[in-house]
Amino acid sequence: MYFDEFRVGQVFHLEPITVTLEEILAFARQYDPQRIHVDADFASQGPFGGLIASGYHTLSMVWSRWIAKDVLGDASMGGPGLDRVQWLYPVRPGDTLYTTVTISQARLSKSQPRGIIGMHFEVVNQEGARVMSTDGAALIQLRPEG
Amino acid sequence: MYFDEFRVGQVFHLEPITVTLEEILAFARQYDPQRIHVDADFASQGPFGGLIASGYHTLSMVWSRWIAKDVLGDASMGGPGLDRVQWLYPVRPGDTLYTTVTISQARLSKSQPRGIIGMHFEVVNQEGARVMSTDGAALIQLRPEG
Repeated sequence: MYFDEFRVGQVFHLEPITVTLEEILAFARQYDPQRIHVDADFASQGPFGGLIASGYHTLSMVWSRWIAKDVLGDASMGGPGLDRVQWLYPVRPGDTLYTTVTISQARLSKSQPRGIIGMHFEVVNQEGARVMSTDGAALIQLRPEG
Repeated sequence: MYFDEFRVGQVFHLEPITVTLEEILAFARQYDPQRIHVDADFASQGPFGGLIASGYHTLSMVWSRWIAKDVLGDASMGGPGLDRVQWLYPVRPGDTLYTTVTISQARLSKSQPRGIIGMHFEVVNQEGARVMSTDGAALIQLRPEG
């Protein structure tokens, strides 16, 4: 989508994420090998009562479904960052995560010929518990003239 | 480290990250398959003049080196979130990333018998360009009595 197609308040529902033990372990072994993410026996004695996904993994899985939605597409010029990443509830093997993305701002850049959109992510699990939220931004090309 | 070992202002230097094309592609294909991250020909025509790492990948690589440092260890009780994730400069294949983590706060929880530390991450590349910064938090066990 080009910038002029974005509207504040648009809501996108992403494809649900089915979280597998194998993917939790593969991500965590490479990027977050804390024992609560990679050692089921240790994790079962810990504050969460079992193995949970790395928050960085949850964040990456959610982002993957946003890209798969192909809303940003090739008009995206990158993302400057994220604010208020909140990991609110454990993500466990077998969970299903449902994500909505709400366009929270859409404005022209003051310095460059492009747009900036805000995206608010809300992620809940199969029981309706909020597991993550965050606010991102993306730089979006203007529609070519003519 | 238990909570009482953390001091505001402590600085930790993490093991440098050598960013490979293979790892950029592997992460991006799974979690951020935008063409600027997975299609070198497309990326060479784009705003960055070449393939760049997903910001989520940079974030995850940096976190992996923090865990490898083993400062948090098994006294960590999870992280509530991140603030102000800023992707400031492109990360390209062959880059080397240097990260410092500064303890930005260390306080007792008001509601639970545990500590909360703040961690400020600063990441620069081999040319000294700032590529990423963020602020995280971690819940840390108190030292057992006796």
